[in-house]
Amino acid sequence: MKHISILGSTGSIGTQTLDVVRQFPDEFKVVGLTANKNSDLLLKQIKEFKPKAAAIMDDSKVSALLNRSSCQVYSGIEGLKKIAALDEADVVANALVGSAGIEPTYHAIINKKNIALANKETLVAAGSIIMEEAKKNKVSLMPIDSEHSAILQCLNGENLKEVNKITITCSGGPFKDYTKQQLEKVAVQDALKHPTWNMGSKITIDSATLMNKGFEVIEAHWLYGIDYEKIKIVVHPQSIVHSLVEFVDKSAIAQLGMPDMKIPIQYALTYPKRFTSLSKSLNLAEIRTLEFEEPDFDKFPCLEYAYKAGNIGGTLPAAINAANEVAVYAFLENQIKFLDIQFLIKKIMDEHKLVKSPTLREILETDKKAKEDAKKIIKDKNSK
Amino acid sequence: MKHISILGSTGSIGTQTLDVVRQFPDEFKVVGLTANKNSDLLLKQIKEFKPKAAAIMDDSKVSALLNRSSCQVYSGIEGLKKIAALDEADVVANALVGSAGIEPTYHAIINKKNIALANKETLVAAGSIIMEEAKKNKVSLMPIDSEHSAILQCLNGENLKEVNKITITCSGGPFKDYTKQQLEKVAVQDALKHPTWNMGSKITIDSATLMNKGFEVIEAHWLYGIDYEKIKIVVHPQSIVHSLVEFVDKSAIAQLGMPDMKIPIQYALTYPKRFTSLSKSLNLAEIRTLEFEEPDFDKFPCLEYAYKAGNIGGTLPAAINAANEVAVYAFLENQIKFLDIQFLIKKIMDEHKLVKSPTLREILETDKKAKEDAKKIIKDKNSK
Repeated sequence: MKHISILGSTGSIGTQTLDVVRQFPDEFKVVGLTANKNSDLLLKQIKEFKPKAAAIMDDSKVSALLNRSSCQVYSGIEGLKKIAALDEADVVANALVGSAGIEPTYHAIINKKNIALANKETLVAAGSIIMEEAKKNKVSLMPIDSEHSAILQCLNGENLKEVNKITITCSGGPFKDYTKQQLEKVAVQDALKHPTWNMGSKITIDSATLMNKGFEVIEAHWLYGIDYEKIKIVVHPQSIVHSLVEFVDKSAIAQLGMPDMKIPIQYALTYPKRFTSLSKSLNLAEIRTLEFEEPDFDKFPCLEYAYKAGNIGGTLPAAINAANEVAVYAFLENQIKFLDIQFLIKKIMDEHKLVKSPTLREILETDKKAKEDAKKIIKDKNSK
Repeated sequence: MKHISILGSTGSIGTQTLDVVRQFPDEFKVVGLTANKNSDLLLKQIKEFKPKAAAIMDDSKVSALLNRSSCQVYSGIEGLKKIAALDEADVVANALVGSAGIEPTYHAIINKKNIALANKETLVAAGSIIMEEAKKNKVSLMPIDSEHSAILQCLNGENLKEVNKITITCSGGPFKDYTKQQLEKVAVQDALKHPTWNMGSKITIDSATLMNKGFEVIEAHWLYGIDYEKIKIVVHPQSIVHSLVEFVDKSAIAQLGMPDMKIPIQYALTYPKRFTSLSKSLNLAEIRTLEFEEPDFDKFPCLEYAYKAGNIGGTLPAAINAANEVAVYAFLENQIKFLDIQFLIKKIMDEHKLVKSPTLREILETDKKAKEDAKKIIKDKNSK
């Protein structure tokens, strides 16, 4: 039986992870849960899954939990770290959003926890450190997202040295066929309508700017040790082929399935085994058509920024990640326009003072500073 | 270095196998070659590849070889068997056409040769015996065709017990969208125009009737020990997805690539390694669209016959294979119409006296008798 802590258990990936756990009571036991603010849902989860401990980030919500929950309750970032390092846990599923996920992942790894990682910002910002620590501590790092789970599955039984290229598929987001003029006028509610995947709001906006796909390129680089020039993106609006790997003999292996996050979540938890799931079986004749096209780097420059940041490395990916995070929330709060997201990232990128081989501390400082800088740019612009 | 004998070296698969061998002179050495009638090409191949021995089926062509070739030359079925059992060979690639391939495969296996099998009739007619002997003699049986090579690659690193279903893709052949009325009037030259694959004439006709796909279902059953109800067919006109395997967690792994037989041939020879090939890399954005539809069992009843024969087993698959072989050659020689192929198979099937657990001898007798019966039916009909 695997003992699991879930960081961010009340979010989209967190609740779906609990859906998977609920299906296999003899295989998985929840030992830790954390939430940001949603104390009501966290309390319900505590009652159902009876973890050893839980944490809530928002200090003002602690009292609501303390008296009503049967388990140990912690709060704030220190509480999160406690859950990430819980003695009872074998696996820590990190479903946090944004750079807030970096430290807990690191903390779980140095405490020898295997990681199921939905928080891609961990690898985007701190890939070199995280991968090194994972290796040093002999823990596995299982991706919880459809693309990297697909790549992992395509590489089963294969030799990484025989990879010719990795192709990450991309739905194209809701604005795939928009003109630049149309992109200028995008409203928040339009950007939140993802064509195929039902996800949290941050990643849904990242999917509309294609920054999400750019980050996935960086993530794939770290997870599988593949050079950037061997990582390609193809737009595939149906989101049925979740990614593919071509080998040197020009034979490609792809992973396919209905767009259902429970499939990669379950795989991350059961690997290398596969358990029978209740998800819908794939019927290609019913789907009828799978389409593919080149991504438009001109209309979606975030792709280019990600490749550039990945290639340059050091603290640059952390900086663009931070800028993106601030920009996305500012857009969600109607403080900036859709295209301002990319302008802001570009500006922070251009002004960034690179540290070539940063420590974790330098990465976290980069994250903090880039966020402050981005917020200041927004404030200055809006006060004009 | 692997030492290879190629049975049927002058045919479509045979010459492409030599193309692969030619690319890797440090990895492969040809030790045996056989041809049916084409002594000119066989002689050229002998000069280029310098095998230890060669054989030609057609006795009248032996003398043309004897004086001009540097190697030992055999003839007839006994010659073929000699090449199949050559001491120097590690691998026997069987690229023979029709039930003539059964005995040489068997002979190679009992002589402890690993098999690269393009001759699907071997497994259709004698699957239980061949698989048992392969196991007993500890030899590997590598498929040389795009679909079964795909399935093998999809199963890399996976557990057969976790398979939910295997889906074999099918181009649909040149008559996918024909009405029954149009099928009645099909000419030989139309049937020889395969939409995606460039193959020998027998298999091209089998692809037009979909008998080829039916045989592949039986082949998949034997190669991977999968129940017939778990083997599905999906029509995919672009022939880019070569087959897929869905696991119990509803995650599917597919193998994709340009329609180029050299890819599966090379894989069969290099497995479990992959060597850099000159084949074209897959670019899905260039291909743009992959389509899928249900096969039409009503219009192409050979599919149903194959499933039925596979499920009943015994000598029945050998009988339909024999009937099909006679019918296809009769069609190629304008003795019968296109739809007569399926009628003839049905007739032989209905009249077949089943042997439940046949010996190889009983299978070969079934093959012989069904062929004679089929020829008689054609003769009787045409003499009316």
